[in-house]
Amino acid sequence: MSTFDPALTPLEWNDLDQRAVTAIKAMAADAVEKAGNGHPGTAISLAPAAYLLFQKVMRHDPSDAGWVGRDRFILSAGHSSLTIYLQLFLAGYGLELDDIAALRQWNSKTPGHPEVGHTTGVEITTGPLGQGLAAATGFAFASRRERGLLDPEAAAGTSPFDHHVYVIAGDGDLQEGVTSEAGSLAGHQELGNLIVIWDDNKISIEDQTDISFSEDVVKRYEAYGWHTLHVDWTNGGGEYTEDVVALAAAIEAAKAETGKPTLIRLSTIIGWPSPKKQDTYAIHGSALGSAEVEGLKEALGLDVTKSFQIDDEVLKYTRSVAERQAAQRTAWDEAFTAWQAANPENAALLARLTAKELPAGWTDALPEFPADPKGIATRVASGKTLTALAPVLPELWGGSADLAGSNNTTMDGEPSFTQPHRQTRTWKGDVYGRTLHFGIREHGMGAILNGIALHGLTRPYGGTFFQFADYMRGSVRLAALDGTPSIFVWTHDSVGLGEDGPTHQPVEHLWAYRAIPNLDIVRPADANETAWAWRGIIENTSNPAGLILSRQNLPTFPRGEEGFAPADGVLKGAYTLLDTDGTPDVILIGTGSEVQLAVRARETLAAEGIKARVVSAPSLEWFARQPAEYRESVLPAGVKARVSVEAGIALGWAGIVGDAGRSVSLEHFGASAPAETLFREFGITAEAVVAAARESIAAAQA
Amino acid sequence: MSTFDPALTPLEWNDLDQRAVTAIKAMAADAVEKAGNGHPGTAISLAPAAYLLFQKVMRHDPSDAGWVGRDRFILSAGHSSLTIYLQLFLAGYGLELDDIAALRQWNSKTPGHPEVGHTTGVEITTGPLGQGLAAATGFAFASRRERGLLDPEAAAGTSPFDHHVYVIAGDGDLQEGVTSEAGSLAGHQELGNLIVIWDDNKISIEDQTDISFSEDVVKRYEAYGWHTLHVDWTNGGGEYTEDVVALAAAIEAAKAETGKPTLIRLSTIIGWPSPKKQDTYAIHGSALGSAEVEGLKEALGLDVTKSFQIDDEVLKYTRSVAERQAAQRTAWDEAFTAWQAANPENAALLARLTAKELPAGWTDALPEFPADPKGIATRVASGKTLTALAPVLPELWGGSADLAGSNNTTMDGEPSFTQPHRQTRTWKGDVYGRTLHFGIREHGMGAILNGIALHGLTRPYGGTFFQFADYMRGSVRLAALDGTPSIFVWTHDSVGLGEDGPTHQPVEHLWAYRAIPNLDIVRPADANETAWAWRGIIENTSNPAGLILSRQNLPTFPRGEEGFAPADGVLKGAYTLLDTDGTPDVILIGTGSEVQLAVRARETLAAEGIKARVVSAPSLEWFARQPAEYRESVLPAGVKARVSVEAGIALGWAGIVGDAGRSVSLEHFGASAPAETLFREFGITAEAVVAAARESIAAAQA
Repeated sequence: MSTFDPALTPLEWNDLDQRAVTAIKAMAADAVEKAGNGHPGTAISLAPAAYLLFQKVMRHDPSDAGWVGRDRFILSAGHSSLTIYLQLFLAGYGLELDDIAALRQWNSKTPGHPEVGHTTGVEITTGPLGQGLAAATGFAFASRRERGLLDPEAAAGTSPFDHHVYVIAGDGDLQEGVTSEAGSLAGHQELGNLIVIWDDNKISIEDQTDISFSEDVVKRYEAYGWHTLHVDWTNGGGEYTEDVVALAAAIEAAKAETGKPTLIRLSTIIGWPSPKKQDTYAIHGSALGSAEVEGLKEALGLDVTKSFQIDDEVLKYTRSVAERQAAQRTAWDEAFTAWQAANPENAALLARLTAKELPAGWTDALPEFPADPKGIATRVASGKTLTALAPVLPELWGGSADLAGSNNTTMDGEPSFTQPHRQTRTWKGDVYGRTLHFGIREHGMGAILNGIALHGLTRPYGGTFFQFADYMRGSVRLAALDGTPSIFVWTHDSVGLGEDGPTHQPVEHLWAYRAIPNLDIVRPADANETAWAWRGIIENTSNPAGLILSRQNLPTFPRGEEGFAPADGVLKGAYTLLDTDGTPDVILIGTGSEVQLAVRARETLAAEGIKARVVSAPSLEWFARQPAEYRESVLPAGVKARVSVEAGIALGWAGIVGDAGRSVSLEHFGASAPAETLFREFGITAEAVVAAARESIAAAQA
Repeated sequence: MSTFDPALTPLEWNDLDQRAVTAIKAMAADAVEKAGNGHPGTAISLAPAAYLLFQKVMRHDPSDAGWVGRDRFILSAGHSSLTIYLQLFLAGYGLELDDIAALRQWNSKTPGHPEVGHTTGVEITTGPLGQGLAAATGFAFASRRERGLLDPEAAAGTSPFDHHVYVIAGDGDLQEGVTSEAGSLAGHQELGNLIVIWDDNKISIEDQTDISFSEDVVKRYEAYGWHTLHVDWTNGGGEYTEDVVALAAAIEAAKAETGKPTLIRLSTIIGWPSPKKQDTYAIHGSALGSAEVEGLKEALGLDVTKSFQIDDEVLKYTRSVAERQAAQRTAWDEAFTAWQAANPENAALLARLTAKELPAGWTDALPEFPADPKGIATRVASGKTLTALAPVLPELWGGSADLAGSNNTTMDGEPSFTQPHRQTRTWKGDVYGRTLHFGIREHGMGAILNGIALHGLTRPYGGTFFQFADYMRGSVRLAALDGTPSIFVWTHDSVGLGEDGPTHQPVEHLWAYRAIPNLDIVRPADANETAWAWRGIIENTSNPAGLILSRQNLPTFPRGEEGFAPADGVLKGAYTLLDTDGTPDVILIGTGSEVQLAVRARETLAAEGIKARVVSAPSLEWFARQPAEYRESVLPAGVKARVSVEAGIALGWAGIVGDAGRSVSLEHFGASAPAETLFREFGITAEAVVAAARESIAAAQA
């Protein structure tokens, strides 16, 4: 419960409310009919529930969609995008009738699935099922951590930062494994401000869900430690009643349970009261057809000849939602002002975080690593960098999917984010703690990281082996699509992980993740490149990044000595690490652990009188963003002899090294053996680079 | 229960049994110590459980690892590979002491994680957590379907094809979402022959699992419809007792419950009785160190100065397991012979399926589609092909992750694989049915498909939107690593899916999946290529394939007319669809829905006097397997002007079209709008191909 929430008891539900709901049920059918395709069913049957949330339950302000005190709403069942568009239209977030009528059309504000950053009022892009519901756990994580940073001492429910996260989820969301992972963590973390309405309509694309979905969902959520409630609009198969009072009461009960997340099972009939297609798959994902649209309007008591009909009086009323919450908003504003006055440092922090600015001088904290031929693993350098950044960047936090010690994702001395009674001998806990423990739940981790980042104020990272990025790829892609600055720490980045063998060795992963548009892949070559990689990633808040780190030690290059360039070139994505006099005969391009091979190959080639430039290319995405002149200065078009070296498939390197180029690569799965054996047996060696360089020079001259 | 199972009551557990268990506990520590790394803890503590399975419970024959009547064993906790290696050693599957001592070394039979096809007796590669447990559902699906094909009328437990699937799973397996998906389906399907032992040791890599795993796992499995049992070797924190009799009794009870899968929660102490490191993460994934190994041996009553010690007497005993099961085996053989005699047709089918042969003349059933400028979607052609193949290939079966109607994965008229009481108005069910319903569980589907294929006799396929291949990537990669011939039907393969927008539109997927070694990606250009694609996929049983299909209609080319080559070229991966007289000026290479653009561009270019060859390239992997001469005949090295056209990122095309080549591609996410709008706005058009051809010709001449 929170001091600033609108009252729900007694629920005000007047004629205007009912007319609004009736209007948008018909409008959902009209919009899909006009588009010719779409998902009308849930938009029709869940209209009262969504309306209840946006008009009665949630604390929000359509004129200030980014208000830090707002409740969050996630439409996990993203295919039913009209469910949120119609509420944004009613509440006055900037959508008008024309926008609803432009559903699913080029350049409209109402795409097929809701897209954050595209339509005001949408908090997260949804559509890939499960992502919204799983990310909701991240939203709730973030709200607790943010409260801890800003207002930790406030009594429960009294802080301006206390708010709820509401989710509408469908059967598909409940079936996806990503939500099982996140749901288990939500129960474990006792996220009392998370309230999920499960639209239990028993219909999905293959019609009745009984064909594949007979588990006891409520019992499963209880097993996760959730609070569960049931609201049955079907009355057990009796007369269907859209009992918004009962739903409001359930929401009240959910809010009263502050120690557990709540799942409200809402039994509905999809498409109700559509006369012939309700309760069938035919209304889930297709236009109703004009006869059925008419039948729906008739059942709703509307003029069957009109489309997109809503009375001005109704719209004026629904758009007064902020005014109707004015008393609560005033109380919130007063509390916020009082908090600012009492907590000037935290208020300054909030202002900085809201502006997405970094603190002055923060980069001074970045470690510098001394030259060391033996060196350290980049995962270790990453861990040291995180620990160094801990005091200066309170917004940075994260953890691992049960690989903390391997991923080096723990900031030394920081408490775990957990309920104190759940701390262990290894991990000291704090409800506002900083170290995240995802368990062995990579996909859930990905979605939770996205939720944290989208909640707005903090910057999350999460680690696993690079191999298991595949388990979380759905979330990674969504982060890229959303431009969510989640940070994925992926260690054990090649066959260099050794004995665990091919199930754990990435081979295709570098290119498979570079393939995702808007995702930055950053694979530093040594400890100092790792620190600079973190800097580059942190300074960029417009898209996600994957930081690719070695298990094995890598030499720390002598920066500024022996011809080695400083590591700040990392920020440009690729840079000349070691140059030659004049035009090079060949350019050796390496990433990560293979840059050292290029360095050694260069020496061998030099002894043969061949001038080789070594380019370290930690991030091809960052390099692609540099001006053409810079890129030309690193990889001059005139130098056709080029060799790439990377312990993975060559795939995209062909486009960089060109027809005369050669790639030292690995085109098959790895094997279980010590790393040095694998590199030797698989031919990922300095000698192979030398041989490839000779070949490439010959090809370029041919 | 099955007629042919060894008796478990009373359990024979003599001194030799106990000495064998004691020996392998020490040997597990020795092997990891010698390797310097590995996972000893679970191998030590679960030794009695694994021994019980291999020596007392399971029906198997070390001299005949492929025996169709065997029980199956899946070590889902693959990191504890010694758990199975030591049983294979004891039972006599071909592993000797030298192999155990070569754990995790180059070319050894004992890699870090168990690999099917590499070590005799391993049924599935495990290591990526959850895959084994999830695939076990597939094993059990397969056993039921195979029984339905071979011996449907036999009373329960009396068929030679009735057997059990045993799984050892760890905490990580239980946390992964893929097992939630598969577990829900296992309960739904009432898989009474699936028995899972969950090693509830409360330790994972981050030490006590309490830090992230507090859900009630048993209750969750009950919610899935599982039978659950608890065997507590910790005696609630009292004296630790490896009570194999209690575990055997639980297994008996599990077998007695034939209407539900069983989860046996086995409470253990990891590494017991290692004196200092038991019950800690330190014994999970690291060598114990010599002092602790000595302490372990002392606790076991063994000579602390010896390594890899086992008495000949013990080994002789354990290797007599088949002899000790001789009576049951004889009974099985008799039953099998009787079955063969009574069911000659089914016996012939079994012989064919076992030999992985296809029936003579099966390709006659493949449909031919008439030329049609409007054409049909390749997903529709795929559905028609499946229906046509249904009567001739009984081993072929599959379904969809709740997208049957969209993926066109249903063979017309075939019953659903489900318990009859779970059939719906839309899907008629049969316990031995053919149409699979995975629900909205892509990752579980992938693992289940792999399990079905690995079980051995049938050939499974499963569909979803290509976009959601990302959700199942972990399973897809494992299929490729295993060489498991699962068939992934991925439809809605580009922005051509239209209005559902960027969350549902693949852009990077073609290259991201081509990137996986040993996975064939096949993207037919029209209906006839689709039928040939199915032929090529079905004829290849050595690795998985992804069949990439369009949502939208594609013209059916006039094969053998107007210069169009026949569609059998599909089997070669790429072929000249339309040629020119003499050497072409430019080669236009397309895949799938974009081949039609190349065809149209060729006409425009011809009008300008430019001779363009059109190459249809449905599978670059198949093409790569052709002889060099064939590849040269399709893409002559001398023709440098080349254009690729594919509605996705260009990535790997650079290596095919070369420096002078051009790629018509899509380098960013899609959008929500009708397909034709998207192709036009994104420049995936015949005009773009024409322009690129002109550019490429100029570049080749420069």
